[in-house]
Amino acid sequence: MSLNPIWPQVALNAVVEREACIPDNLRLSPEFIAKYPAGSNVLNAAAESGFMSDKELKLTDPSNDATSIIAAIKARDVSAVEVLTAFIKRATIGHQLLCCLTQIFFDEGLARAKELDDYYLKTGQLVGPLHGLPISIKDHMGVKGKRATGGFSGDLDKLFSTEHAHLNQILWDAGCVFYCKTNLPQMIMHLETHSFWGQTLNPHNTQLTSGGSSGGCGALIAFGGSPLGLGTDIGGSLRSPSSNCGIFTLKPTTGRLPGNGLRGGSVVPGADAIVATSGPLTRSSRDIDLFFNVVFAAQPWLQNMALVPLPWKREPMKWSGTGGKIRLGVMWNDLVVLPQPPIRRALQAMVDVLKETGNYEIIDYEPTYHKDLVLMAQKLYFVDGGASGRARAAATGEPLCHLSEWVLSLPGVKDHTMHELWELLLERDALRAKYYAYWNSQRIDVLLCPAHHGPAQPLQTTKYWGYTSAFNCADFPAAVFPTGLTADPMLDLKEEPRQSWSEADAHSIATYEPNLFKNAPLSLQLVSKRHADETVLQALQEIEEVLPLRN
Amino acid sequence: MSLNPIWPQVALNAVVEREACIPDNLRLSPEFIAKYPAGSNVLNAAAESGFMSDKELKLTDPSNDATSIIAAIKARDVSAVEVLTAFIKRATIGHQLLCCLTQIFFDEGLARAKELDDYYLKTGQLVGPLHGLPISIKDHMGVKGKRATGGFSGDLDKLFSTEHAHLNQILWDAGCVFYCKTNLPQMIMHLETHSFWGQTLNPHNTQLTSGGSSGGCGALIAFGGSPLGLGTDIGGSLRSPSSNCGIFTLKPTTGRLPGNGLRGGSVVPGADAIVATSGPLTRSSRDIDLFFNVVFAAQPWLQNMALVPLPWKREPMKWSGTGGKIRLGVMWNDLVVLPQPPIRRALQAMVDVLKETGNYEIIDYEPTYHKDLVLMAQKLYFVDGGASGRARAAATGEPLCHLSEWVLSLPGVKDHTMHELWELLLERDALRAKYYAYWNSQRIDVLLCPAHHGPAQPLQTTKYWGYTSAFNCADFPAAVFPTGLTADPMLDLKEEPRQSWSEADAHSIATYEPNLFKNAPLSLQLVSKRHADETVLQALQEIEEVLPLRN
Repeated sequence: MSLNPIWPQVALNAVVEREACIPDNLRLSPEFIAKYPAGSNVLNAAAESGFMSDKELKLTDPSNDATSIIAAIKARDVSAVEVLTAFIKRATIGHQLLCCLTQIFFDEGLARAKELDDYYLKTGQLVGPLHGLPISIKDHMGVKGKRATGGFSGDLDKLFSTEHAHLNQILWDAGCVFYCKTNLPQMIMHLETHSFWGQTLNPHNTQLTSGGSSGGCGALIAFGGSPLGLGTDIGGSLRSPSSNCGIFTLKPTTGRLPGNGLRGGSVVPGADAIVATSGPLTRSSRDIDLFFNVVFAAQPWLQNMALVPLPWKREPMKWSGTGGKIRLGVMWNDLVVLPQPPIRRALQAMVDVLKETGNYEIIDYEPTYHKDLVLMAQKLYFVDGGASGRARAAATGEPLCHLSEWVLSLPGVKDHTMHELWELLLERDALRAKYYAYWNSQRIDVLLCPAHHGPAQPLQTTKYWGYTSAFNCADFPAAVFPTGLTADPMLDLKEEPRQSWSEADAHSIATYEPNLFKNAPLSLQLVSKRHADETVLQALQEIEEVLPLRN
Repeated sequence: MSLNPIWPQVALNAVVEREACIPDNLRLSPEFIAKYPAGSNVLNAAAESGFMSDKELKLTDPSNDATSIIAAIKARDVSAVEVLTAFIKRATIGHQLLCCLTQIFFDEGLARAKELDDYYLKTGQLVGPLHGLPISIKDHMGVKGKRATGGFSGDLDKLFSTEHAHLNQILWDAGCVFYCKTNLPQMIMHLETHSFWGQTLNPHNTQLTSGGSSGGCGALIAFGGSPLGLGTDIGGSLRSPSSNCGIFTLKPTTGRLPGNGLRGGSVVPGADAIVATSGPLTRSSRDIDLFFNVVFAAQPWLQNMALVPLPWKREPMKWSGTGGKIRLGVMWNDLVVLPQPPIRRALQAMVDVLKETGNYEIIDYEPTYHKDLVLMAQKLYFVDGGASGRARAAATGEPLCHLSEWVLSLPGVKDHTMHELWELLLERDALRAKYYAYWNSQRIDVLLCPAHHGPAQPLQTTKYWGYTSAFNCADFPAAVFPTGLTADPMLDLKEEPRQSWSEADAHSIATYEPNLFKNAPLSLQLVSKRHADETVLQALQEIEEVLPLRN
C-alpha cells in the first residue's frame, strides 16, 4: 500500500481519521501485507486473510454481480446485514493493500442494512429495486453528512454535503446502502488516482495504476469490496479505471443522469465548456442496465430541469446491418498513439471472434477528426489556464502532483478572455458538427475501439487521454468492458523500433516494457452517438455472449 | 412609414437596393401614403390600394391561416403562384407603410412556386406538407444566397449564407416558398424593430412599435403579407411582436428546434450563458402545431447533435386538475412592473371567461423569483459588458441606437473574467433549480400571465423585458395569443397616481396615455415548464375555444 498524503496537517489528519475507522478485527498485519510486494496480484488476499467465511467470499466475489446479490436478498438466501458485513470485510482488506477508500462509515451502513432487513421481515416488501445493495461513492459526490473533496486537502473543511446529491437520493430511495467513499486524484483530473488521500493501486498488479479519476471505486470493485460504484467522467474517469481494473462501465450522454450537486467537489464549478457526467462502475453489463432502469424509473427530469426527459429504452434495437446484423465499426487506433501490443492483440482477438459468430457486419472506421477532438478537449478543460486548480492547491500550500502539473501544461491550456472563449466554443461546436456528420456517414450502430492506448500503466506515467477524451469532446456515450484477456509478457512482446506519431506515442513506446504489465486486464471500448446510450448497452450485451476471451 | 437608415453609405445602399426591388406596379403614391398619418390603423390599406383582387384579399386575409392555404392548394382551388402573387402584393403594400422587409426576392419565390405547381400538375403529388406555403424569414436567419444581418450595417458584406440554415432547409424540403426577409433591430436586442434597415411600425396603430426583435415578421403577418414567419427569441423576440401585432407564437424550449447556423447573424456567436431559440409566428395555434409537426417529422436531431431527440407529442395531455381539468395558474403581475390598465383588463376578462366554462381549475400563482430571473437574464445577455455589440457598430461607424445603448447600460451588464463567469453560471443554475422547484410545488399544467407590461408601446419607449425574459432565463416554453380585445381609451383609463415598484414601473406609469394605444391588440402569454412545449400548445388550443373576446 502506498499511503502518500501530501503534507499539510489537515490532509494528514484526514488520513489518520480514515485509518482509525478500520475495524480492529480486520487490520492486516505488517507480515501479511509484506506478502504482496509491488507488482503482486492481490486478488486472493481476501481469501488468504482468514477474515472471511466461504459464504462471504462467494457473496463478494467479483463474479457475483449486483443483480444476483439483490435476488439473493429478495429470496432471503442472505440478509442485507450479511451482505454488507461481507463487503465491509473485503473492502477493508482491499483498502489496506490498495488505498482505495477515503471516508469510511460502516456503522451507518450497517444501521441502514438492519432497517432494510427489519422492513422486509415486517412487511414482506422490499424498499425498492436496490434493496440492500451496498454502493460505493466517489469522494466528490454528495452523500448526506459526509465531506465531498475534489482531491484537494483544502476541500476538507469546505465541501460538506447537507443532503444526498440527487442521483444518490434516487439510489437511496431504491433501497441501497452507502458505507464508504472512494479515492480520486488531485483536481479529479488524472487518469490515475493519487491525492492527499494516498495513491490507489491496481489489484491485478500493484505496480500499475488503478486508473482514474474514479480509480478508488475501480480498484475496490475489482478486488471485490463493492458490487457497484458511482463515479464521473469528463475525459475518461469512469472508463480508465474500468479498463485498468477489468470491470464494466457506461459513460452516458451528458444531460441524462443527474450530476453531483452544484458545488459538490467538481474541479471548476460553473465551467461548462466541457462537462462531466455521472455513471456506474459495475461487474456486469446487466448491472448497468439495472442502474439506468432504477434511475430513469424515478424520472429525474421532473426534479432537475437540466435533464433531458428521455426514458431508458428497453425495446430491442433495430440494427442497421443487412439481415438485421449489428453494423460495427472498428477503430484500430486513433492515429495519435498506436495502442501498445496487448491492446492490439485484444482488439484483433475480439474482432476475430465477432466475425466468427456471423452476427456482425464489421467495417473499418477511420479516426477522422480524432486528433482534433483530443486537442479540443484539452483546450476545453482549463479555459482559465488552470488558475482555479492551482489556487485550490495553494489554498493549503498543497503542492501540485506530477500529473496535475502535466495536465495543466498540455498544449491548448490557456487563460481566455470572454471573446476568446466564445471563439473556442464556436470551434468546438463546428468540430462536433463535423464529427457527427462523419459518424452518420459511416452508418454504423456502434464503434469498437481501444479504451486506452495500453493496459493499466506503471504508476505516475499515464499521459494520454485521447481514446476516452475524444468521446467526451463529442459527447458520445461509451462503455468499457473486459475482454477476459490479460497482458502476457510471452504474447505481448516489445515491438520493433518505429517512428512515433506524436509525443504521446513516443512516451507510450518508451514506457512499454512487457514484464511490467503482467496480469493487467485487457479491456475495450464500445461507443455510439449522442443520446444513443441504450444502443451501446444493447450491443454490449450481444458482444458479452462471446466473453470472456482467453489468452 | 419611417425609413430611417443609419448613415454609413453601405447601409443606405442596402436600403436603396431593397426599395428598388419593389415592383413598379405595386408602388404606392405619396398621396395614398399620406392618407395614413402616424397613429393610423393601416389594416385596410391593402383593400384600399386597388392593387388586389377580392380573391387575393381573401386569400391573404389574416383570418386565413397557413393550414387553410395549404388545403386550398391541395384542393386545386388556387395555385402556389396565385398564392404567392397575392402575398407579394400585400407584403409590398405593407412594407411601404410599415417598413417590415429587409431583402426582397419575389422573382425567386415565383420561380419556386411555379416549379411546385408544375410538379403537382405533372405527378399529382405534393412536394410535402407545406407545398406552396410562402414563409417570411427574419433577416439574420440563413437563406441560401442571401445576406444575414444582425441589424448592423457592418454585417452586410460579411454574413452571406451559402446554404439554408438547417431549419429553413427542413421547411424548404416540405415544400415552402421563400420570398422575403424581415426587419429586426440593431444587435437583435430590442423589443422593438429599429435598425439601419428602418423602423417597423405597428399596423394596428402606426404610432406604436411592432415589437421586436422579430418585429418585421410580426407586422408583416398581422398586415396580411405573410401567412407564417420565422423568428428567434432570447428575451421576448418572438413573443413581443406577436403580442404587439395580435398574432400567435410559441417560443419552444431550447434544444428542440435547430438554430440558424453557427454564425448566422446572432449577436454574439459562441456566447451561451443564455441562448436564443427559433420559432414560428403564425395566424392560429393550429399553424403552430403544423409547423412543429413538419419540423419534427424530419427528425432534426439525426443531423444536429445539439438537439434533443424528442418527437412532437400529439397524444392528448392528461391534465392535473380534479376531474381532468386543466390546472391553470394565473400570474396577475410580476411584482416588478404592474401591467398597464388594458392588459389588466384583458387578463381579468380571460380568467372570467375561463372560469365560466367550468373546465379549468384556476389558482393564483405568486411571481416568486421573477424579479431574480429578470435581473439574471440581464446579466447573462452581455457577459462581455456589451463590447462585442459596440465593436460591431463601430466597425462601420454606425451609431448605437437609443434602445441599444439603453439595453447595454442595464444593471448587471459588465465584462466578466472567466472565474466571474463561472460564478454567474452557478448562480444562474441555482436560480433555475429554485424556480423549477417552485413551479413544481404549484402543481399547475400551465401559467397564464401578461406577455408584456402593456400593449404595443409608442416608438422607442419599450424598456421592460421582464414578462418575457423571465421565461428565457428559466428556459420555459411560452406561447402568446391575441385575446381579441383591443386597447380602448374609454375602457382603459389612466390610473390614479400610485407608488411605483421599480424604475421600469415608474417608466410604465409615466408613458401610459390611454389615447396613444387605441386599437392596440391585447395579448396574453401561456407558459409551461421546460420541455413541456406540447403542454403549452394543447392548453392554448383549449383556451382558443373561447376566443376571440370582445371589448
